[in-house]
Amino acid sequence: MNDFTFLSPTRLIVGRKAEERTGEWIKAYGGHKALVHHDSMYCKTSGLVDKIIDTIHAAGVETVELGGVVPNPHLDLVYQGIELCRRENVDFVLAIGGGSVIDSAKAIAMGLKYDGDVWDLFVEDNGVTRGVETEPCVPVGVVLTIAATGSESSNSCVITKVDEQLKRFCDNDLHRPVFAIEDPELTMSLPKFQTACGVIDIMSHSMERYFTNVPTGNELTDRLCEAIFLTCMDCGRTLMDDPNNYDARANVMVASSLSHNGLTGIGRNNSGDWSSHFIEHELSGEYDVTHGAGLAVITPAWMKYVYRDNMPMFLKWATRVMGVSHDYCNPELTVLEGIRRLEDFFRSLGIPTTMREMPDVGVVPEEIMYKMAKRVRITNKNGTVGTLRQLATEDIVNIFRLAQ
Amino acid sequence: MNDFTFLSPTRLIVGRKAEERTGEWIKAYGGHKALVHHDSMYCKTSGLVDKIIDTIHAAGVETVELGGVVPNPHLDLVYQGIELCRRENVDFVLAIGGGSVIDSAKAIAMGLKYDGDVWDLFVEDNGVTRGVETEPCVPVGVVLTIAATGSESSNSCVITKVDEQLKRFCDNDLHRPVFAIEDPELTMSLPKFQTACGVIDIMSHSMERYFTNVPTGNELTDRLCEAIFLTCMDCGRTLMDDPNNYDARANVMVASSLSHNGLTGIGRNNSGDWSSHFIEHELSGEYDVTHGAGLAVITPAWMKYVYRDNMPMFLKWATRVMGVSHDYCNPELTVLEGIRRLEDFFRSLGIPTTMREMPDVGVVPEEIMYKMAKRVRITNKNGTVGTLRQLATEDIVNIFRLAQ
Repeated sequence: MNDFTFLSPTRLIVGRKAEERTGEWIKAYGGHKALVHHDSMYCKTSGLVDKIIDTIHAAGVETVELGGVVPNPHLDLVYQGIELCRRENVDFVLAIGGGSVIDSAKAIAMGLKYDGDVWDLFVEDNGVTRGVETEPCVPVGVVLTIAATGSESSNSCVITKVDEQLKRFCDNDLHRPVFAIEDPELTMSLPKFQTACGVIDIMSHSMERYFTNVPTGNELTDRLCEAIFLTCMDCGRTLMDDPNNYDARANVMVASSLSHNGLTGIGRNNSGDWSSHFIEHELSGEYDVTHGAGLAVITPAWMKYVYRDNMPMFLKWATRVMGVSHDYCNPELTVLEGIRRLEDFFRSLGIPTTMREMPDVGVVPEEIMYKMAKRVRITNKNGTVGTLRQLATEDIVNIFRLAQ
Repeated sequence: MNDFTFLSPTRLIVGRKAEERTGEWIKAYGGHKALVHHDSMYCKTSGLVDKIIDTIHAAGVETVELGGVVPNPHLDLVYQGIELCRRENVDFVLAIGGGSVIDSAKAIAMGLKYDGDVWDLFVEDNGVTRGVETEPCVPVGVVLTIAATGSESSNSCVITKVDEQLKRFCDNDLHRPVFAIEDPELTMSLPKFQTACGVIDIMSHSMERYFTNVPTGNELTDRLCEAIFLTCMDCGRTLMDDPNNYDARANVMVASSLSHNGLTGIGRNNSGDWSSHFIEHELSGEYDVTHGAGLAVITPAWMKYVYRDNMPMFLKWATRVMGVSHDYCNPELTVLEGIRRLEDFFRSLGIPTTMREMPDVGVVPEEIMYKMAKRVRITNKNGTVGTLRQLATEDIVNIFRLAQ
């Protein structure tokens, strides 16, 4: 086990109608005037935003509203939020929604305590994303409406600067939400496709931490990851037939918050591999596919390309999680059968596992593969991405070929 | 899944020589003058306390020292600590040691912010322990030297008032330590017996949460508990042969902190069963046996007595954790085989699983069984203990008979 520090200060408030106490929680965290941030879509039109605003007023807390968050949230709206909050003396930022709204709220909260341009905090150093510690943020709270990104308890924040086509990260413990209100019933109306993509994204956050270049010494962490994988697979399957199953919705929602708060990564010498995530980001960027659907294509391909570099972990996963019998004569067959079963699981959620089967993608020409591969975010100083195997452009193209 | 809120605000700082940064962490949490609290035994004589005090001074933080904590820590020393801290304007309490030292430190920290007698916070209401919320505590930090009680991240605190022979609890989220520094190497010198008792106690904290009257709907929580059980069994066995195995020490230490911080209890309609713990407390009180050793005797007996009341959970445990094949013709045999394997595991750690085999106990007369049973802490309003089955005096005596 490698040295680590772990802190997950987000209070999870889980249960039916939990959002009815939003105002009390904001007040408990010292809020007097809250920005209510949302995407102007389902949460607004369903009346959820207005209901929550009522609970906030009932707690004696004032509000200012800012909707309009879009997927891959825009820096422009962040600027607008900061300006509005400064003008209105806002001291609490509430996100009602999923990852995009939460990330936008985090950026506003950071910007409020930062004298310069908030985009400074997202700028990269020599092509490698750097974490920046700002002053303590204005507190951020969340009412979660989709289980997927884990942003409700993570230290991640991704913002897009549209005019320069830049999508940038700022990992910062100080913007972790102080609370995440999770009412599983709010996720019941999600379409099957969104539910499935969320489950895959949740699994991926722990897969990225499970499959690194550290094969042994983290028995507890390995098993915590496996708890996430197995729960997501059980409950994901249930939700395809029974989308209103409360327990399955609740387990997936809590899994979302535990899969990306750092818990499943403790004791490894880095925070994960993240190749699949970064490769998928470029697929999403090129073809506008949903992140979880892209991960269902990229992850198995990545596994097939790198598994030989950490056979002990892939064998552990194939046998413990995917239920494959260990073939001691040919352990590689055990791993490949595990990957095949993972693909089967993704397909059982209605999500294809090859690019050519994806409605928005199809057969990808080699030149597009190279174009996407060259754009993949560099995470290592030698110009590669990933830790289990450090992948250069040609490796990434090979992974796209396997995903074809 | 039942409604819950979960907050675990303790920063875990894990690694070799992590204690060398104790001073920096106290300073980061705003400490100017720290009480250094310990048991005057191993941690003091080994020089560990003095080394840590040096790091605190190096960080520009002053110290006051108070040793002398004993197992089942005494209220008198708590009073002494509160008086000392008030006189010296202490604003941070550091515990160096295990559960007793940490509990004593928590009580001092609570007392410092409470105008009345700190014992008020431990008093029971109609025989049922009540949780009391005080003002925010003076922050408590921990340098952990034994993995067992989980007090380093829990909301529990147990103090004994010697003159009245009262051992009382105060569960309070406000006294959860702000950090727990965990250097696995500090636990390597523990005798095998202490290591084994620690492993059993850690497992028990999640068993008490796993085996309740809620059979379904908590797949994630069930699997998190199983992660703790399996890790403790793997690493516990390793440590019997190889007590200096760093990874096994580290995994057990982190398991201690995750098994009792509430994580493995989320989503059940109460915080656990706790019958085995409370029954064991009386065995410990009568015969002065170590808590973990007592649990190795009481837990299997309790299981044999109650398993029929929650067959789904006992079957899940026997098959997933204890590796028993599910006997569909006679599922009870599956559970009983699981319990037998648990006893085997405890014995593989050198810990007996019957009272008559315990050096300090032997054959327990019926009248002593009744005496102990009548003393068991009541947790339900109808005068019983436990949730999986609510146990009255005669039930508890039956469990002692099974443990004989």
